[in-house]
Amino acid sequence: MIDYSRSTSPDVGEFLETDGRVAVMPFGALEQHGPHLPLSTDTLQAEALAAAIAEHITGALIPAIPYGNTWSNDALPGTISLSADTVTAVCADIALSLESAGFSLLVVVNGDFGNRLPLHRAAEAAASRGGMPILVLDYPGLTEIGDAVKETPWAAPGLCHAEEVETSLILAIAPELVHRERYVVEYPELPPDFGLRQMALAPLSHSGVFGDPRSASAEKGNRILAHVVEESAQVIAAVRTSLGITQQQQ
Amino acid sequence: MIDYSRSTSPDVGEFLETDGRVAVMPFGALEQHGPHLPLSTDTLQAEALAAAIAEHITGALIPAIPYGNTWSNDALPGTISLSADTVTAVCADIALSLESAGFSLLVVVNGDFGNRLPLHRAAEAAASRGGMPILVLDYPGLTEIGDAVKETPWAAPGLCHAEEVETSLILAIAPELVHRERYVVEYPELPPDFGLRQMALAPLSHSGVFGDPRSASAEKGNRILAHVVEESAQVIAAVRTSLGITQQQQ
Amino acid sequence: MIDYSRSTSPDVGEFLETDGRVAVMPFGALEQHGPHLPLSTDTLQAEALAAAIAEHITGALIPAIPYGNTWSNDALPGTISLSADTVTAVCADIALSLESAGFSLLVVVNGDFGNRLPLHRAAEAAASRGGMPILVLDYPGLTEIGDAVKETPWAAPGLCHAEEVETSLILAIAPELVHRERYVVEYPELPPDFGLRQMALAPLSHSGVFGDPRSASAEKGNRILAHVVEESAQVIAAVRTSLGITQQQQ
Amino acid sequence: MIDYSRSTSPDVGEFLETDGRVAVMPFGALEQHGPHLPLSTDTLQAEALAAAIAEHITGALIPAIPYGNTWSNDALPGTISLSADTVTAVCADIALSLESAGFSLLVVVNGDFGNRLPLHRAAEAAASRGGMPILVLDYPGLTEIGDAVKETPWAAPGLCHAEEVETSLILAIAPELVHRERYVVEYPELPPDFGLRQMALAPLSHSGVFGDPRSASAEKGNRILAHVVEESAQVIAAVRTSLGITQQQQ
Amino acid sequence: MIDYSRSTSPDVGEFLETDGRVAVMPFGALEQHGPHLPLSTDTLQAEALAAAIAEHITGALIPAIPYGNTWSNDALPGTISLSADTVTAVCADIALSLESAGFSLLVVVNGDFGNRLPLHRAAEAAASRGGMPILVLDYPGLTEIGDAVKETPWAAPGLCHAEEVETSLILAIAPELVHRERYVVEYPELPPDFGLRQMALAPLSHSGVFGDPRSASAEKGNRILAHVVEESAQVIAAVRTSLGITQQQQ
Amino acid sequence: MIDYSRSTSPDVGEFLETDGRVAVMPFGALEQHGPHLPLSTDTLQAEALAAAIAEHITGALIPAIPYGNTWSNDALPGTISLSADTVTAVCADIALSLESAGFSLLVVVNGDFGNRLPLHRAAEAAASRGGMPILVLDYPGLTEIGDAVKETPWAAPGLCHAEEVETSLILAIAPELVHRERYVVEYPELPPDFGLRQMALAPLSHSGVFGDPRSASAEKGNRILAHVVEESAQVIAAVRTSLGITQQQQ
Repeated sequence: MIDYSRSTSPDVGEFLETDGRVAVMPFGALEQHGPHLPLSTDTLQAEALAAAIAEHITGALIPAIPYGNTWSNDALPGTISLSADTVTAVCADIALSLESAGFSLLVVVNGDFGNRLPLHRAAEAAASRGGMPILVLDYPGLTEIGDAVKETPWAAPGLCHAEEVETSLILAIAPELVHRERYVVEYPELPPDFGLRQMALAPLSHSGVFGDPRSASAEKGNRILAHVVEESAQVIAAVRTSLGITQQQQ
Repeated sequence: MIDYSRSTSPDVGEFLETDGRVAVMPFGALEQHGPHLPLSTDTLQAEALAAAIAEHITGALIPAIPYGNTWSNDALPGTISLSADTVTAVCADIALSLESAGFSLLVVVNGDFGNRLPLHRAAEAAASRGGMPILVLDYPGLTEIGDAVKETPWAAPGLCHAEEVETSLILAIAPELVHRERYVVEYPELPPDFGLRQMALAPLSHSGVFGDPRSASAEKGNRILAHVVEESAQVIAAVRTSLGITQQQQ
Repeated sequence: MIDYSRSTSPDVGEFLETDGRVAVMPFGALEQHGPHLPLSTDTLQAEALAAAIAEHITGALIPAIPYGNTWSNDALPGTISLSADTVTAVCADIALSLESAGFSLLVVVNGDFGNRLPLHRAAEAAASRGGMPILVLDYPGLTEIGDAVKETPWAAPGLCHAEEVETSLILAIAPELVHRERYVVEYPELPPDFGLRQMALAPLSHSGVFGDPRSASAEKGNRILAHVVEESAQVIAAVRTSLGITQQQQ
Repeated sequence: MIDYSRSTSPDVGEFLETDGRVAVMPFGALEQHGPHLPLSTDTLQAEALAAAIAEHITGALIPAIPYGNTWSNDALPGTISLSADTVTAVCADIALSLESAGFSLLVVVNGDFGNRLPLHRAAEAAASRGGMPILVLDYPGLTEIGDAVKETPWAAPGLCHAEEVETSLILAIAPELVHRERYVVEYPELPPDFGLRQMALAPLSHSGVFGDPRSASAEKGNRILAHVVEESAQVIAAVRTSLGITQQQQ
Repeated sequence: MIDYSRSTSPDVGEFLETDGRVAVMPFGALEQHGPHLPLSTDTLQAEALAAAIAEHITGALIPAIPYGNTWSNDALPGTISLSADTVTAVCADIALSLESAGFSLLVVVNGDFGNRLPLHRAAEAAASRGGMPILVLDYPGLTEIGDAVKETPWAAPGLCHAEEVETSLILAIAPELVHRERYVVEYPELPPDFGLRQMALAPLSHSGVFGDPRSASAEKGNRILAHVVEESAQVIAAVRTSLGITQQQQ
Repeated sequence: MIDYSRSTSPDVGEFLETDGRVAVMPFGALEQHGPHLPLSTDTLQAEALAAAIAEHITGALIPAIPYGNTWSNDALPGTISLSADTVTAVCADIALSLESAGFSLLVVVNGDFGNRLPLHRAAEAAASRGGMPILVLDYPGLTEIGDAVKETPWAAPGLCHAEEVETSLILAIAPELVHRERYVVEYPELPPDFGLRQMALAPLSHSGVFGDPRSASAEKGNRILAHVVEESAQVIAAVRTSLGITQQQQ
């Protein structure tokens, strides 16, 4: 595994001489996460996962994009959003640059729901023109491990926002940024078509919390991370096999 | 329910004086569907569903787009594809036109997997700018009813392409276009990352069939149609409630 | 002649093995056509002509686009419009797809005045980059045959909208959609620069009719169709000769 | 009439205080015109016509664009071309700028066939959004006056390129740029679909001439100019009446 | 040196057979220049410089673009502006056309501050894709020669607008267009961040003058022209050496 | 000063209630910086400067973009580049988002030469439409302070790349990432037009170093940072005065 941010050009040059190079890019967001979690919550999670995945697969970790397509939370203080088209363009540009540098696959570890469509669009465009494949991972296995570790109910199935799962993850990754004294519990009344179409989230929750963070813990966060890393590695292994990309030696 | 194609301007004018107007647009494709089904299979299915849905909800049926984003089948004869950006633009233009004509909601009945990303992208763009909502329906309930009626296994969970489900649907909708004498059975060996990333389908199946059409029947097709219409109507009802759109009298 | 919508992939595959393949695409519109003609009038006409032309030249009929660039009629109920750029994109995408499938020429049978500029723009872009030629046909010979068959005057030379010519065509193609009991006669006072620049049509005619439909007949419609088909076939023959595309055997 | 190029800001300020302001812009090209005419032939003609039209209608003459969409002549030395999209953008930008400066109409005097589609596209886009009207004039009356003054046949009906008409015009406008000693006569064999679709012109004529310049004269040029100016003024008058723009006093 | 506007296709054909062809394009503007200078001041200056530079380097002079990106003066009568994107597109299109005609370098003589960003953007885009180089010259040496010849202070260092430098240039180039009787002196109070960010100029100067034109003279204008031509030629020589383009014989 | 990444939504909400809000965004790059400096050198520098500037002016620090428009170094390992258009889009999107959140000014601390054009283009586009101002700072005062502290010559005036200035800066900011044992000295032979036009840098320096890093020190780095921060603060103060934005209390 190589961490591009902290490495020099010749270090990277050596890595690039091996076969089957895979890059792992976290794509985050800057978005309200209630009164107790930092705006960078999604970026911190995606970075932690991407680093662990890159380690697991002996890939190249490249820097995180700290903004996402977060119009659905624009109405709450602190959210700063890229447009969907710009998210697509950033991903496509980086994939092109990696392709010309000799990579075989870009894995995007996507930290925010709003980035899904624009990132998958970049992946589809690359596939349709026969370019270097882009694999977008939306935290595979998160709902399963959430079901296993959560002591509090979901606000909606698989919906993680400033509740037990996300709070546990930040307690594991950057506990100094969690304001435990500000925990609030909010189970918003969701409209009947929640999850059926795109809608603004800001009007739904007064506090910005969708659930109950009180039973969060770093230990739970680490269990969640470990599971999502393991699931991600299996997906990447399947793609590698399908594409005929050799697994590199650690 | 009003069918725009067959109606005159004054007919439509009367319809437009009622409240809570909902338009239903089928979005199809022109794509290979094995040796026994017509290239317009996806369009025929989307049209049949959209007509039944429009009837069910007292909405306006508008004409089907008979091409889709079908690059994944480009390699087989008969597939003619729009780009993803064009699919998005067609949907966005029609929604804008309906919005200025006084509609409250556009329901898109999507007949092809390749249209999902570009149609949902149009829906998300409308939502992010506060425009008239677009609801994209990808055959809700299809997997459930497929599980219930199929006598043959899926090539992959929920994958319908020229097999028992799709053949049953066309037997119900346009039996004169089904070449029963050409039925072939093919269960392609799918790569380990099938469904995990976008990929070309044409190389996977020699015949273009993904499953076994032999036990298909019009009766099964009608059961599938009825179930998807019912599920679609429930989704639309939820959206109407959420948006405060009155249900129209039949 | 092969009709893509109703054919299977292997049927098309055989057709594609012959030389000099020409595709014929109707490009329609969904637009007000007075109180007695359906909104799909332009699409129905383009489809009927395209089918007859494809038959005449042993070409491939591909599905009609049922919407056009009809902003000039946006103010009347029932008109749903694509933007000019989208009309261009749809035509360009389909031409590219046909080119990669081995076709030699796309003939577009254009059913609406508003599509002229955007379709010819697609044709010019293809020509300027040396791509597969696109031939846009705007009903060649229509004014001549109109002069010959009409018993009522034109609202303006060559202007056909819900009057004797268009009503005769729909009486020939889909008589069940013509409301004979609703015929109205309207000869709008046209501004002095009518035809000299682009302008909205909706404010000009109260009824949406530009002329007198009362003497329309299916027999006249068939004469008009036959003449436009014949003229179209001559144009296509000239293009084929110019491009060196062999005429296929029927 | 005011000539922007040679006027100061306060001069223009006075002109802008009158009502019904109309701007006249020549749109030219830089294109091969045989061995005896300059590359700027189309620009010179459009400029001369635009100046006379602006004089006639008491309008504002604004500077000529000296390049056009001339891909069809790209293969011959001296042709330098803008893309069609750029021609559209230039025209649209200038119209927007004039609109915000208080003008009521932009008249474009188009000097090259290749600019027709992109200029009319700009005009149509302005019309469809209800912006300041753009009137594109493609030398109205040219064929009629050509029929009247020409002593030599057309290479094709109305086709003027480095033959008697164009040579007469430059003899009238800039005789010092005409190389009379280099006159050649060429009547290219035109393909059967000439004029039916867009095609490259360069391969058709060895010399770049389409006709016979030998009987050209300045006197004929002046007759042609006068007729096209008169026809243009009538069209503009019709548009003014239609738009309710007052005729200004000279 | 060859002047495209006044040359024929075969003349240019001969020029194009020599090596190391360089084209010189003036890019002007139509913009207020106080009460005494014409709106075309920037175009006239760029044309005069470009002609002298083309002469000096035995290059090809191509026609001037008489409009620029002048939004910062939009509020004063007479300014007609292109958007920044259109300026970039015009420059990029012409460079592409020259590249396909066999040129080695496009030198753009930029006559207006507002064109800098969009022209350099075109140059950078060409460089990044390895296309024919574009060299944008923003009057090299102007501040130095201004310091040497000016008898009046600058409104801001290097800021030339309707003051001694620009008035001297037009007195040298087109004295008949200078209204000496209208000279006004204005030294606007500039905001503290003038020159640090883009801002509208129109509100800053009541007259549109930024300095004192009274001591301007044609002789000074000619000295300024000669110096900028010399500096430009040196820059071009450096680029030629760097690119390995042979200097042509005069 | 508030650091968005580490703050919560309510924290930011309080900050947003004060007047004259200014956001400071570092725009970095991922680019080769010789054998001894990390690929993230430009990002680290821009982040350190932006944090100090935000502190100085009581502004809001928002997250750094860790990629830039670095095509000129694409040929060396480790460079991953955004296109110029994407850099512009990212900056424009964030400015729009800040504007709708109530900010008065976005200050971009630009860490890479290749970002200059695209960032200033975003700033100019905002200015031309009257949007929230964007101030792009390209390390004001860097050449002056470089002249003052450097003991080794510049490779070219003001050119900082992996030499004494940049190495000093990283020694001050992140000394653990500097490989002192790998210092190499390289003064590339620069082409005569270096700095006169855009060109690829990768072919010019074998090592990627442009100068001599050996006398670098953290103390020099801190002096450079302090000077650039002070100069930046003065520029921002001038803009604030010009725009009438109140200075906030610390």
